[in-house]
Amino acid sequence: MGDVTGRLAEIVGERNLLSGDAVPDDYAHDESLTVGAAKPAHVAKPATAEEVAALLALAAENDLPVTARGSGSGLSGAARPRENGLLISFERMNAVLEIDTANQVAVVQPGVTLAELDEATAEAGLAYTVYPGELSASVGGNVGTNAGGMRAVKYGVARHNIVGLQAVLPTGEIIRTGGKTSKISSGYDLTQLIIGSEGTLALVTEVSVKLHPRLAHAATLLAPFGDLDQVMRAVPEIIASGLTPNILEYIDNLTMAAISYNEKLSLGVPDEVRDATQAYLVVGLENRDGDRLDGDVQRAGELLGELGASDVYVLDGGSARKLIEAREKAFWTAKAAGADDVIDVVVPRAEMPGFLAKVRELAAAAEAGAIGCGHAGDGNVHLGIFCKDPEKRHALLHDIFAAGIAVGGAISGEHGIGQAKKDHFVALEDPGKVALLRRIKQAFDPKGILNPDVLFD
Amino acid sequence: MGDVTGRLAEIVGERNLLSGDAVPDDYAHDESLTVGAAKPAHVAKPATAEEVAALLALAAENDLPVTARGSGSGLSGAARPRENGLLISFERMNAVLEIDTANQVAVVQPGVTLAELDEATAEAGLAYTVYPGELSASVGGNVGTNAGGMRAVKYGVARHNIVGLQAVLPTGEIIRTGGKTSKISSGYDLTQLIIGSEGTLALVTEVSVKLHPRLAHAATLLAPFGDLDQVMRAVPEIIASGLTPNILEYIDNLTMAAISYNEKLSLGVPDEVRDATQAYLVVGLENRDGDRLDGDVQRAGELLGELGASDVYVLDGGSARKLIEAREKAFWTAKAAGADDVIDVVVPRAEMPGFLAKVRELAAAAEAGAIGCGHAGDGNVHLGIFCKDPEKRHALLHDIFAAGIAVGGAISGEHGIGQAKKDHFVALEDPGKVALLRRIKQAFDPKGILNPDVLFD
Repeated sequence: MGDVTGRLAEIVGERNLLSGDAVPDDYAHDESLTVGAAKPAHVAKPATAEEVAALLALAAENDLPVTARGSGSGLSGAARPRENGLLISFERMNAVLEIDTANQVAVVQPGVTLAELDEATAEAGLAYTVYPGELSASVGGNVGTNAGGMRAVKYGVARHNIVGLQAVLPTGEIIRTGGKTSKISSGYDLTQLIIGSEGTLALVTEVSVKLHPRLAHAATLLAPFGDLDQVMRAVPEIIASGLTPNILEYIDNLTMAAISYNEKLSLGVPDEVRDATQAYLVVGLENRDGDRLDGDVQRAGELLGELGASDVYVLDGGSARKLIEAREKAFWTAKAAGADDVIDVVVPRAEMPGFLAKVRELAAAAEAGAIGCGHAGDGNVHLGIFCKDPEKRHALLHDIFAAGIAVGGAISGEHGIGQAKKDHFVALEDPGKVALLRRIKQAFDPKGILNPDVLFD
Repeated sequence: MGDVTGRLAEIVGERNLLSGDAVPDDYAHDESLTVGAAKPAHVAKPATAEEVAALLALAAENDLPVTARGSGSGLSGAARPRENGLLISFERMNAVLEIDTANQVAVVQPGVTLAELDEATAEAGLAYTVYPGELSASVGGNVGTNAGGMRAVKYGVARHNIVGLQAVLPTGEIIRTGGKTSKISSGYDLTQLIIGSEGTLALVTEVSVKLHPRLAHAATLLAPFGDLDQVMRAVPEIIASGLTPNILEYIDNLTMAAISYNEKLSLGVPDEVRDATQAYLVVGLENRDGDRLDGDVQRAGELLGELGASDVYVLDGGSARKLIEAREKAFWTAKAAGADDVIDVVVPRAEMPGFLAKVRELAAAAEAGAIGCGHAGDGNVHLGIFCKDPEKRHALLHDIFAAGIAVGGAISGEHGIGQAKKDHFVALEDPGKVALLRRIKQAFDPKGILNPDVLFD
């Protein structure tokens, strides 16, 4: 097998390789609350697709398990390496290669963060509209998890906004998929297959993303409701109205209390309204024309009233920004509050009332807590789970996931399965389908070197 | 091997099986101009997914090649069966199972035509927004080809509007993928992988499609340009304007002459303008609010003038409808005019001027004709090819496809590769990528029974 360390150093250069005790703790985990840390034998930081290909060839030759890492902000342990494995960190492949305004496409390396891409596109009046809470997340990580976030209700998730990839196969080939076009019907869509595959099929070395015009005018409405069911029943009506909100979030009262306290939010909701509120809807609207936006705000306010909101507050710019930021930090708030896990089941949006009622029932029976917020327009329910006992928690999660699947949903809407939820995934999914996924994995990665602990074993 | 005919009849019922001389000619071909007819040994018309599964099990047992057929309106020969093979026609699986207004999803069987689905959704004020020219096309065919059409510039193609499938694997399992949600991050996206796979991976037995609200107000603008390049350069500017057209088509002057003549169109363009025109842009706008639409029409008219249109005509409802219908029939016009092939290369939209200049050059050198129209907003160029000699035509197509790929495009934007273009596909695609596609095919279809002549051999 030769001197693996030496050959790794030859590929990426000695100062871009960390081995053994030199590997910092940060590389041993992502932000999953339940997947424990594991220090890899090596961390390699390639600069080019060719270096990635050489790393994979060497790994295949030596049966070295390989895990890709962007910013490490994932929540499912998909970037947690194997002990004795090779972690490939894309931190040096962080260039914005092109902002193509005519085709409204940006071409970037996977290590570019969302904050960096947002800055680069802002100059052209354009935006990559996938905003998961964490702007330190990398574009490569977005590809791996099929990231979503608050704007997905209008713009779709990563899958709908990534048009092309360069990727290295575990068999060593560098391929290109898709391109700067939104439509292609020329062979199986490998772009779509690699998106959401959590680093198990190929390593992405370049990403072409669709850009949308930044609209000049925006407003945020906050609507308290006395009843969580009412919030959930309002959601399909708002979607059907044609107002095309770019944000449609729900926040339950406990979560609102926690994020308000943590972020020192003051939203102008009187105490007596707040005390009678079970949950809030946050509705974002935007338009290229100020008058049209005003008309939409008016109409949305009326509609929310008709749907049962006890009041509607149009937030000023500063408050709106603070609320959105606080909502984006809900994961950190839950973590600080002692949540034992954070999950993100997705269900058809009209099934949310029934699903959340079932969750309350299951949590009560398990003497556990399940509180949260979520991308209501997409049916993507984020829940902080408070349940110390690992066995009880596992059983509760199983039941919650099963309840989501039973109404036509899935275990995760945007966080992915990773290592955290693979047992549930394999237990709850159709075995014939899992067998097919395994054969697809085999078609890409016959030696099984890419993230062998993710999705399934 | 037993009596295959008898066992097929047992599965679908005797009157739903046609064998030997009883097979009508229609089942021997689709609408491809170049893929010759081939009569299958059997045509089976199943009514349920279970019958499809039984048919595939029998086919696998007997190494019987299987081709799926929707309406037979495809243009690449993907529904042309093997002689001695089994054609599975989905004509009896033609029920609209559900119009779910709360989730804005329709669930249909694959044999439902677009016209039928359009009628069923209209009652709810909703629409499945994939409108390829041919409304007799089936939803199952849409899945197979990843169909596009004129509204894709605003609403995306089939891939962006199909959220879930039930499908039968060639290994016999019936699986479900996706659901009524727009986002899922729970394993590889089999929905997306099956879409566009042209009947080579699985047979689709149920389709869940996203529905959009039908907007009450619409307008169509027709803008003649003296110069084809100018048309093409206008396209990215219109997209960047934020007017969000739902139609953005170009029609070259020869094609406009042919469709106007065939469909008896009278668009109010004076002779002297027409004679100085090289190509037209058709811009569709829609809004839920009439005043907003008027504002957009005004703005679009000004913009088209600034971009070099020699005039702008706002068509009345009747003329607009006739023009759109005539454009949708452009394939039939080209066929009637004696076109020897019709292709639909897709390129990044800003690359259209250069690509079309190259096409003109290649066609002139081959003493051939290449005229057409296309989905300009998507960079999807539809060309009627006039070149009688098969060898010269093959070489010309090779060069045109290569020119499209060279600027970051692909052989087909929405028609698919089928049997018609597979030689070009294999010749021009990266061999490493084709090898991967073959391994994926193998993962689904180890015995190679599904459409063995499509995409690659």
